[in-house]
Amino acid sequence: MDSSRLVSRRDLDFLLFEWLDVEALTSRERYDDHDRTTFDGVLDVSERLAAEKFAPLAAALDVDEPRIGDDGKVVLLPEVAEALAAYNEAGLPGMSFPSEHGGFPMPFTVQRAASLFFQAASVGAHAYPSLAAGNAHLLLTHGTPEQIATYAEPVVEGRWYGTMCLSEPEAGSSLADLTTRAVRQDDGSYRVSGTKMWISAGDHELGENIVHLVLAKTPDAPPGTKGLSLFIVPKLLPDSDGAPGERNDVALVGLNHKMGFRGTTNTLLNFGEGFATPGGERGAVGFLVGEEGRGLAAMFTMMNEARIGVGAGAVALGYTGYLHALDYAKTRTQGRPLDAKDPSTPPVPIIEHPDVRRMLLAQKSYVEGGLALILYCARLVDDQATAPEPDDSERAARLLDVLTPIAKAWPSQWCLAANDLAIQVHGGYGYTRDYPVERLYRDNRLNPIHEGTQGIQGLDLLGRKMVAGGGAGLVLLAETITETVVRARKGGGEAATYAAALEAALARLIEVTGLAWSDGDPAVALANATAYLEAAGHVVVAWLWLEQLLAAAGRDGAPYDGKRLAARYFFTYELPTIAPKLDLVAARDRTTLDLDVTAL
Amino acid sequence: MDSSRLVSRRDLDFLLFEWLDVEALTSRERYDDHDRTTFDGVLDVSERLAAEKFAPLAAALDVDEPRIGDDGKVVLLPEVAEALAAYNEAGLPGMSFPSEHGGFPMPFTVQRAASLFFQAASVGAHAYPSLAAGNAHLLLTHGTPEQIATYAEPVVEGRWYGTMCLSEPEAGSSLADLTTRAVRQDDGSYRVSGTKMWISAGDHELGENIVHLVLAKTPDAPPGTKGLSLFIVPKLLPDSDGAPGERNDVALVGLNHKMGFRGTTNTLLNFGEGFATPGGERGAVGFLVGEEGRGLAAMFTMMNEARIGVGAGAVALGYTGYLHALDYAKTRTQGRPLDAKDPSTPPVPIIEHPDVRRMLLAQKSYVEGGLALILYCARLVDDQATAPEPDDSERAARLLDVLTPIAKAWPSQWCLAANDLAIQVHGGYGYTRDYPVERLYRDNRLNPIHEGTQGIQGLDLLGRKMVAGGGAGLVLLAETITETVVRARKGGGEAATYAAALEAALARLIEVTGLAWSDGDPAVALANATAYLEAAGHVVVAWLWLEQLLAAAGRDGAPYDGKRLAARYFFTYELPTIAPKLDLVAARDRTTLDLDVTAL
Repeated sequence: MDSSRLVSRRDLDFLLFEWLDVEALTSRERYDDHDRTTFDGVLDVSERLAAEKFAPLAAALDVDEPRIGDDGKVVLLPEVAEALAAYNEAGLPGMSFPSEHGGFPMPFTVQRAASLFFQAASVGAHAYPSLAAGNAHLLLTHGTPEQIATYAEPVVEGRWYGTMCLSEPEAGSSLADLTTRAVRQDDGSYRVSGTKMWISAGDHELGENIVHLVLAKTPDAPPGTKGLSLFIVPKLLPDSDGAPGERNDVALVGLNHKMGFRGTTNTLLNFGEGFATPGGERGAVGFLVGEEGRGLAAMFTMMNEARIGVGAGAVALGYTGYLHALDYAKTRTQGRPLDAKDPSTPPVPIIEHPDVRRMLLAQKSYVEGGLALILYCARLVDDQATAPEPDDSERAARLLDVLTPIAKAWPSQWCLAANDLAIQVHGGYGYTRDYPVERLYRDNRLNPIHEGTQGIQGLDLLGRKMVAGGGAGLVLLAETITETVVRARKGGGEAATYAAALEAALARLIEVTGLAWSDGDPAVALANATAYLEAAGHVVVAWLWLEQLLAAAGRDGAPYDGKRLAARYFFTYELPTIAPKLDLVAARDRTTLDLDVTAL
Repeated sequence: MDSSRLVSRRDLDFLLFEWLDVEALTSRERYDDHDRTTFDGVLDVSERLAAEKFAPLAAALDVDEPRIGDDGKVVLLPEVAEALAAYNEAGLPGMSFPSEHGGFPMPFTVQRAASLFFQAASVGAHAYPSLAAGNAHLLLTHGTPEQIATYAEPVVEGRWYGTMCLSEPEAGSSLADLTTRAVRQDDGSYRVSGTKMWISAGDHELGENIVHLVLAKTPDAPPGTKGLSLFIVPKLLPDSDGAPGERNDVALVGLNHKMGFRGTTNTLLNFGEGFATPGGERGAVGFLVGEEGRGLAAMFTMMNEARIGVGAGAVALGYTGYLHALDYAKTRTQGRPLDAKDPSTPPVPIIEHPDVRRMLLAQKSYVEGGLALILYCARLVDDQATAPEPDDSERAARLLDVLTPIAKAWPSQWCLAANDLAIQVHGGYGYTRDYPVERLYRDNRLNPIHEGTQGIQGLDLLGRKMVAGGGAGLVLLAETITETVVRARKGGGEAATYAAALEAALARLIEVTGLAWSDGDPAVALANATAYLEAAGHVVVAWLWLEQLLAAAGRDGAPYDGKRLAARYFFTYELPTIAPKLDLVAARDRTTLDLDVTAL
């Protein structure tokens, strides 16, 4: 497939190099082997492999989804293994790992940008290396040197894969209610037993082994999330040389069959309820990561990156849908302009119709706005890790904390809305499986659910991130946005107009945050946290559109004109929609609190 | 399946008998054989058959969608024929036909209500009798007595089916560009040749014959829609006794494979390009309905009812999704209230969480508001046809004209949004195919596209319906809404508060309608017609919520409390969202008009 309909490389280059100055990261020690050429190289190879190896299998993988074969093993389309072999051969698993573990560390911002091509091409196939990398990253931070060598380094080489096992059938959003148990043995290992649900990439034959990272409770642990510990539970137990050996007691119980995202196996796994383990004890053999009772904390060190990853996936799916819709609108002819009603004139491309343009502009503003949000947050991850001044690093970490629920939730909502509009632009054809846009919608529909639903992101934002430390998060966000407002005002013109609108929106957001909490009752403050999340998200993305407008200032050409158009759309059509949402939060409306549920 | 999760019968009874006083129709001559008992009878049998015969096949029909067998015939799950046999045996095809043609005419309002159960249970299977009925209705209005006897009466008996053949591969929204040709023969018949696309129920073996109603152009016809004529093109040509005889030249070229709505065959048909017809001429044998050049007008006499039918389907799918989500939210436990963080307490049903309640209230307000809209419009259809005073009939027709684009578009947007929320309430489970909500979303996604897209409904509303006759449509709508406002004000309390909000919203809608057209330039006025449509739709549905609130006034019990809750939700959360939309229309924003498309 032509890569031109995955994610716009021109837009990525604009955001990375003309706006976020990612090249400046090469002056930091961790990245001083790099320069623009190596960044371009990773983007080039990603774009090419995504188009050549991943995009062509996406539709087939949606139809021929993974299944369990007669031998109990997962059967996947062979093209997935071929695509991942090409991914491994290009060395891409190494881009997020330090060189001492076999990697060639790219800035997180560049990694995220490169991964977008794969997410746009086949989000289902890309999930395997992506989850493996997340798993290995966690071990790099929290594992022992031996655990890293045994369980993370094979992932860096693309030979092993990994999972995150949090949810259970009765506990998804509420991790406090996990029931999987882990019992310590005399040799220091544990025996893990329980059932885990929604485990993506939970079983398959793509690599030599699968490293499950499992949250479980030790026998004397306190109730709630404080009792959770984290365990490595490999599918195959490594022998003394680290090679995959005997089968551990991890059983594939079933595959979940989903609306979309079908290329990734999504599994129900039983730990410790199948055959006997090597030693004869009940339970899968597991190895503690870090300390007992610190499992959730270890998981949450990965959460900012994981949630940015979800947002990035939503952006990628929305982006490729937009490019398909744009292409369709330019070529499909239908109808005539309102002032040319003579039916003997030829029909025009549908992009000539204002409502089609509206739908395209909306998509553009969502997907490019979402992309700016994701890359900005990725840049904060880099600054948190590598900024030379501790103050800068700490500031980046705090701003990232505030922005993370928005980076997860906003693209999940609006880039999904972009996919919906892409279907609408295609009309009846978009509703058929002959065009990719309906599949993209179905794939993207997962993103508002997993890694914390929209509702949970709202509680996180208004209940924690904005108000912790006496509102330090909100203050920091406001300072950051205001810096842009000040710059935009200086230049005058359209940017100054938008700056004024943004300043007013920000002021209202700050005021409403205070009003929400003015009773001091969290139940009242948070009753409309989702509306608050949506409004705050639009304020943040409006700010990033103003940033993009400033980065495009004085530049001629279609890409810059496009930025001006989409900024105009966002400030004209989108930002004003926050007013009724914030009014609702400000009113501390109790409709949902006082509800008598028997009347529903 | 238990019928309790299709559409609430209690709600239907409230709307039909406590609000719309449908029983009063029994005093009109056409319905004087009826009473509440016969109305209840049709509703009872529909509810029962939908639950027993249609609902159980919906999921299977989504997976085993229609296909073309080796013999070139359509293969459908046998359960569809069984369900339709039960439908026919109950005499339900007759409910929309006069007794002289073998029917037992029910008020349109009761027909629509009864059909909702089938649309909720299996929108795909119900489309076959529904399309057949629409086809036969058209013939009753525009056909000759012989055409009615030959082609409509077998439909009344449930033996034949029918289609509407408008779209072609290159002409969907733009009927002016149809290319199918019809050439008159010496015997007065025509030979029809061309390709028709998106033809629902276009081929199958469910009945003895299929009556295609085909829009085509005669050789000397003028360009545009004025050149369109309408033809009966039967799949099998009736012999001298009217029995299906020789095959006509209508060929099934292919089936469209869609995101949802998979139970209905959706076909690409070739007319007159297959085998030779009986007389040896090229072209399928067709018979003119009405006069040449009046084809579109004939189609459009059915359009109000067809568009209400689409809106009704959207309501039915949204409604059943809501009831599933409500049931799930009451039984699924997860998490704890914010003020009960002790993790050793048991988790609560998720309906205890405010954000879940918000999602349920939103769904309730959309689906019950949409249902009120559909039944109100259906009541107008009845008044148009049977009101004793010509003035009342004419008034109903005019109000129906204004409301029709809203009745089509509003449920297609918001009851689809309800399906999206139903998935979200179910969390990860809602994203699997083990629960019906993802299928309901996919089924409903068609409705904003077919029978005129949302964009086309917006142009119809702001470009024609509201402004025709010096704004007579808008004036009539405003008078009607104001009558409710006056009544609501008299009672005081919550209803009076909402009445004031509605009055202000209506005033703004009127003002903005004028502002949109103040330049006199249709391109400018209509550039944001979709935003206008959305705002006008919310004003209308707010009005119908106020109507329902008044109908529930002074009544105790859960169903009435539920109406008060949903009205409160709609006025608090929904009506305020129209402000930025109307501001946009008022500003005559030119963003989409002035767009340089090369910058996208």
